[in-house]
Amino acid sequence: MLYSENSNPQLLNQYQSLDTPFLLVDKQLMLKNLARLRSKTEALGAELRPHFKTIRALEAVHHLLPQRTSAITVSTVKEAEALAGEGYTNIVYAVGISEGKLPRIEQLIVKGAEVRVLLDTLEQAEFVSRYCEQHNCAIAALIEVDCDGHRGGIHPDDPKLIEIASLLHHGAASFHGVLAHAGESYLCFDQESLAEAARNEVKMTLKAANNLRAAAIPCDIVSIGSTPTAHSYQDLTGITEVRAGVYGFFDLVMAGIGVCQLDDIAASVVTTVIGHNKEKGWLFIDAGWMALSADRGTAGQPKDCGYGLVAKTNGQLVEAMQVIGVNQEHGIIAAVGCDAISFDDFPVGCRLHILPNHACATASMHQHYHVFDTQETTYENWNRIQGW
Amino acid sequence: MLYSENSNPQLLNQYQSLDTPFLLVDKQLMLKNLARLRSKTEALGAELRPHFKTIRALEAVHHLLPQRTSAITVSTVKEAEALAGEGYTNIVYAVGISEGKLPRIEQLIVKGAEVRVLLDTLEQAEFVSRYCEQHNCAIAALIEVDCDGHRGGIHPDDPKLIEIASLLHHGAASFHGVLAHAGESYLCFDQESLAEAARNEVKMTLKAANNLRAAAIPCDIVSIGSTPTAHSYQDLTGITEVRAGVYGFFDLVMAGIGVCQLDDIAASVVTTVIGHNKEKGWLFIDAGWMALSADRGTAGQPKDCGYGLVAKTNGQLVEAMQVIGVNQEHGIIAAVGCDAISFDDFPVGCRLHILPNHACATASMHQHYHVFDTQETTYENWNRIQGW
Repeated sequence: MLYSENSNPQLLNQYQSLDTPFLLVDKQLMLKNLARLRSKTEALGAELRPHFKTIRALEAVHHLLPQRTSAITVSTVKEAEALAGEGYTNIVYAVGISEGKLPRIEQLIVKGAEVRVLLDTLEQAEFVSRYCEQHNCAIAALIEVDCDGHRGGIHPDDPKLIEIASLLHHGAASFHGVLAHAGESYLCFDQESLAEAARNEVKMTLKAANNLRAAAIPCDIVSIGSTPTAHSYQDLTGITEVRAGVYGFFDLVMAGIGVCQLDDIAASVVTTVIGHNKEKGWLFIDAGWMALSADRGTAGQPKDCGYGLVAKTNGQLVEAMQVIGVNQEHGIIAAVGCDAISFDDFPVGCRLHILPNHACATASMHQHYHVFDTQETTYENWNRIQGW
Repeated sequence: MLYSENSNPQLLNQYQSLDTPFLLVDKQLMLKNLARLRSKTEALGAELRPHFKTIRALEAVHHLLPQRTSAITVSTVKEAEALAGEGYTNIVYAVGISEGKLPRIEQLIVKGAEVRVLLDTLEQAEFVSRYCEQHNCAIAALIEVDCDGHRGGIHPDDPKLIEIASLLHHGAASFHGVLAHAGESYLCFDQESLAEAARNEVKMTLKAANNLRAAAIPCDIVSIGSTPTAHSYQDLTGITEVRAGVYGFFDLVMAGIGVCQLDDIAASVVTTVIGHNKEKGWLFIDAGWMALSADRGTAGQPKDCGYGLVAKTNGQLVEAMQVIGVNQEHGIIAAVGCDAISFDDFPVGCRLHILPNHACATASMHQHYHVFDTQETTYENWNRIQGW
């Protein structure tokens, strides 16, 4: 982290001039996280297709992608439109398509972007095909494969897989391949179960691709990924691309799963202590769920971190202190499971950094990211793309 | 609610042209909710000081306030700046003040707004006084009173109350009164406990005011409020103003507490069904925590509503269906506690309206509100004020 007596005076001045609460990004940590997964994935022979949903700032894209033709994933059409506007053309929109969004997808394709949509029902394949026919355009689709029973998708051996792919392949739309997301990997807490979830995601998705090929349907794209499994693959033979989102920032959920350390977390919320309740042992801060999000992603983990862990401005984690409660613009910090808070160490007015449970959720609460690079001695203000 | 076969064709067209997910506000319901609390409060002889934190849209202010000098509460300096920019001058910033925010408060005062800050520690009173002295300005402060042990504030009989008020009153700042928030009233689920919470909030805040007056410190403002207690006061003698925020939209938490009915809820998220998992009995929708928020405010209530209840587009509540899970841009709806979902009634592509657990949290996820008035046959797009 960034702020100690040795900090560059200009950066420190910039940091101090910002009103709390604000989202601070440690750029060097982010770059390290981004490079780690890209090199791991490429070493295994697949392409990394970062999920833009976490960072969602155009200023960050050239750090996420080596080239304008590099692969990227989005969670909203709005992100795709923003990326295409900057010349990024290789986009997967990885939320089940609805008919109403097709005109905007068509517009992107007309303007030269290669946007692929995702679906897992015959109804969707039908309206995509019908739209392509009626509008004389070719929208490419991927079929979502259910690899672990987590959410949506079609089981690799379900005959609907072939049925839907045939409809796309032989109709006016086009079929480009299969996509899976090992959502159950969020419930893994040791290396062995992570490796197993990763192997299973690979195996099930390859099975779907091979079933399609056996039915004479080409399946060029075989896309898998989740941040936990993406860091756990050992063999990606047959897989063309890996998707992950939160790996750039990392967070307490990912640290709990074991794919990062606490000091890899590149995003935190800077807040000010605005009160004490000494009887109850509480510090009040000016960061509530508006700044932190109400995400409780660590609630089901071996170590529950409340609404976030607490670090001093020099980066030192304050062991056993947590944000135990949030209102809209108030947070409550308390000692959990051990010593009481020494109030003299946290006077009214001092700043603290809150490490987020879930960086996607915390980042989504902020319109701007305040990005500090202590190595290059730079400060940048990034704008999050908002809405749908 | 709004959408049935009898709807105005232009409004229906407008509604259908909007991509999901989006936040829909039923304007007539909102106006009814706003009028209900204003008339109740004024009938009891106090002024209503609406909390802007829920709606946060300048387009709504003239519905919240009868005049530009009417009282309003804010949760961020950003809201105060936006309101002052429109000529609204009577503002309480109801989150404990930090020193770094004083220059912006001073700017607002210089421009003619009467902004009062809130504090509950000697340290805050000291830095406010010092700032006023050094900058030759007069910032007015209220002291937060702890009426129910919920969060911050000073107990009415704590000698610090007099100490802090004296420092403000005799120093360069000014002291205007006391403010309490009956946060514990969110745990009331019947009329009797609501009435008791309301009486207690009045009693404790009056006690603080009277203790100050007994120490020869004027206490002009006696401010209380929470949406549950605001609807439950019977006697406001001695109270000058009542604050409430969520009462304009209402939500499932307030319905659970019993201060509104489900059909008073004026804000919902419009979403599209994007998939089925018939084995599991799940509908997938394109509204996840990005559109609904991750708020689980009904989790501690007698009726847990998951991440929201489900209504058809004609407003009819679908009994026993709930949003049981959310990811960033996916929601999962299932039948809870009774019949399985009839999938034919909810085909891929159909729209649903999700009633929010906590309207403040859900509204905060949206940059725009789509405001429909079926009585006046108008549509408005309101812009939420964002950030701090």
